[in-house]
Amino acid sequence: MSELRTVRGMRDLMGPEMRIRDYLEETAIEVFRLFGYEPLDSPIMELWETLSAKGGEEVDAETFRFEDKGDREVGLRFDLTVPLARIIATNLHLPKPFKRYAVGKAWRYDRPQAGRYREFTQADVDIVGSDSPAADAEVVLVALEFLKRILEEDYIIKINNRKVLRGLTEKADVPESLAHECFRAIDKLDKIGKDGVMEELRERGIAEESSRFLIDAIDMSGTGMSVLDRFQDVLEGSDIGQKGVDELRFMAQVFDECKKSKYVEFDMSLARGLDYYTGPVFEGRYLGEPDVGSVLGGGRYDNLIEKFGGPPTPATGISLGIGRLIDVMLEKGLGEDLAPELDAFIAPIKKPMVKHAMRMQCDLVAAGISCEVDLMDRSLGKLLELADSRNARYTIIVGKRDLSRGEVSLRDMLTKETEQVKVGNIVERVLRFTEQAGPPS
Amino acid sequence: MSELRTVRGMRDLMGPEMRIRDYLEETAIEVFRLFGYEPLDSPIMELWETLSAKGGEEVDAETFRFEDKGDREVGLRFDLTVPLARIIATNLHLPKPFKRYAVGKAWRYDRPQAGRYREFTQADVDIVGSDSPAADAEVVLVALEFLKRILEEDYIIKINNRKVLRGLTEKADVPESLAHECFRAIDKLDKIGKDGVMEELRERGIAEESSRFLIDAIDMSGTGMSVLDRFQDVLEGSDIGQKGVDELRFMAQVFDECKKSKYVEFDMSLARGLDYYTGPVFEGRYLGEPDVGSVLGGGRYDNLIEKFGGPPTPATGISLGIGRLIDVMLEKGLGEDLAPELDAFIAPIKKPMVKHAMRMQCDLVAAGISCEVDLMDRSLGKLLELADSRNARYTIIVGKRDLSRGEVSLRDMLTKETEQVKVGNIVERVLRFTEQAGPPS
Repeated sequence: MSELRTVRGMRDLMGPEMRIRDYLEETAIEVFRLFGYEPLDSPIMELWETLSAKGGEEVDAETFRFEDKGDREVGLRFDLTVPLARIIATNLHLPKPFKRYAVGKAWRYDRPQAGRYREFTQADVDIVGSDSPAADAEVVLVALEFLKRILEEDYIIKINNRKVLRGLTEKADVPESLAHECFRAIDKLDKIGKDGVMEELRERGIAEESSRFLIDAIDMSGTGMSVLDRFQDVLEGSDIGQKGVDELRFMAQVFDECKKSKYVEFDMSLARGLDYYTGPVFEGRYLGEPDVGSVLGGGRYDNLIEKFGGPPTPATGISLGIGRLIDVMLEKGLGEDLAPELDAFIAPIKKPMVKHAMRMQCDLVAAGISCEVDLMDRSLGKLLELADSRNARYTIIVGKRDLSRGEVSLRDMLTKETEQVKVGNIVERVLRFTEQAGPPS
Repeated sequence: MSELRTVRGMRDLMGPEMRIRDYLEETAIEVFRLFGYEPLDSPIMELWETLSAKGGEEVDAETFRFEDKGDREVGLRFDLTVPLARIIATNLHLPKPFKRYAVGKAWRYDRPQAGRYREFTQADVDIVGSDSPAADAEVVLVALEFLKRILEEDYIIKINNRKVLRGLTEKADVPESLAHECFRAIDKLDKIGKDGVMEELRERGIAEESSRFLIDAIDMSGTGMSVLDRFQDVLEGSDIGQKGVDELRFMAQVFDECKKSKYVEFDMSLARGLDYYTGPVFEGRYLGEPDVGSVLGGGRYDNLIEKFGGPPTPATGISLGIGRLIDVMLEKGLGEDLAPELDAFIAPIKKPMVKHAMRMQCDLVAAGISCEVDLMDRSLGKLLELADSRNARYTIIVGKRDLSRGEVSLRDMLTKETEQVKVGNIVERVLRFTEQAGPPS
């Protein structure tokens, strides 16, 4: 066997995993289109000056970066937001709000771990040009509709607001320059617990008393308005904090009206790692096994387009982590459900029949019937085995004697019954059968 | 405006171009699935030792190549065949014939020209493990079905056989070591004419008499069996040449039986640039304006898997050039035909109505109706203009007074008629309308 292999931390997709990825992407795109988003695609690589415009230390450490032959520094995109920001900043004519979806790969050079790859697929929706919390609510509703279609009930989207967090640090007397350090420590509550966060805050130079105040506050999470009332009490006196709560309240009213409240949790410890968020932030989790961590994330980033040289432009969006969801769906056994089915397997009995078999295949395919012709000159017994292994609904046996009478044998692979069908009637006949069983796949 | 830009030779896709690409990819995938092919995806980058296993001088010159941080040499794939060959060579358990499709991007660092990009999308089908010309015929039939769906009539697939060309050089007394040089010169007949090819052959060290023989022979092209009879006459006495003609004859019989002969031309000057082809070779052209060059290409490559360290494995395939077809379809005006339509545009009259509008959006989307809620707090006049510009079939106006009676206004954007509809009936009502007009998009 060959010793060639994939690049470390990357994987080939075939069989069940591949079918699940197609299903997830197709489901996401269907939902995005129903909500009125338009597709956008950009090159996988960007100039380094574009990638680095986003800022943040991970960009430097985790980007696949190289020089092209013109000696320009380029790199592979690490998300789908950077290309969007570049496009918005350089195409001022685009109507606002600009609602786009994008499905594509991104690359990060981080340590390979179970379930994490250096090449991964994301499916993003973003709304550019609206500063309304209605836009934040909408991208969450898009994600909820997607999750409903693939997971039915076992999911939650956690929501917080960077303004709420800023209000908290204000009330805790944390200097603005240390606010982001605070958010990063707080974001780890789930993983390292209260004591761990206290320790992190101490290491980052936050005063004992401030840390104590934050720890007491961030423990709050729950669904609906009552938890937001408690957010509001804690943030009394902070203008930015109150503004944050008002935005969340507007979103909560939308989710309530849409009967989605039980899938949404307001969680004051949620910060999200990326520094560029300015308002509501979101993170989605699958509640069953395996726990794969966050399966979607996003938030409002009102300052990002400016960083790319564009005019001040509010924007919000959400990114579905297709790669992690593949693992969830595999575990749920979806790979088997998606096993491809063939409407018909066409078995030419020896080579001179192949051209006749292929003619039937052309006619069937043109009518939207999936079918395959055996190319290996096999015996009838082998051919029927093969038809079974390919999940064929029917086998069409093309033999010389039958064909001389203008007929073929049509075998129903479920009932094991065989009947003679005129060649000219085969499309109509199989179409009738497959339509009884549902539309052709 | 920002001065950031795309990497040179690469493009963003949005609007009509993007919709055309989606349409082409979706059409290709539908045809591939109907013919029983299964999807396969691989990372966009491969180890350099994998990429260079293919051989050929362009690989060295045209690959985007770099070192990753582990100091391994890697590069972006320049086609979808190399990853397939690696996967076949390292996954010996895969059942044969292995029929896979792949749709994805590839990269070549060549000189940017009009209509040629350094990042481009290909849609490939390959059959691995069958040495039958029936497999070659099948991949051509797949391509013909695709072309029929997107272009109706204006296309041709040219076919030749490397064995025919080898037979020709044998008959012309060209040494085997110069055969590939000959093929490359011959392949230019379309572009540089007979005199040009003569000149090229002279430069490559082919004897005058040999060149004369080749030039007289390669001028043959046409559809159906009669041109193959002439191929056969010219190749009399060459075993490999006769074998090549026999394979083409088998394919011609299939196309004849499938009533596809008029879309297929046997052309003795077709060689295809890549050295690894061993049998039939294919090239597709759009016959209308603009002439974008080859829109698909492929052929049989029985030695390639071995070059990647796998066992001897026959294989054949075809690659659709989605990028060039985008330009064809744009010129044909398809971009406008594909302009997205919205089933409903929901216009909340001022902010307090937004949550009710979003609730209706959720209900409509869940029922498969595409719709959008205005997020910008606009006046009714502006909203109706916007609904028109979004190609909305209906506008649902959500006003406070109507809603207090449990109603909304439904405006038919074609007839300009407006009626009151109970909120609870809105899904059923829009569904009835859109079903009359065809299924929701």
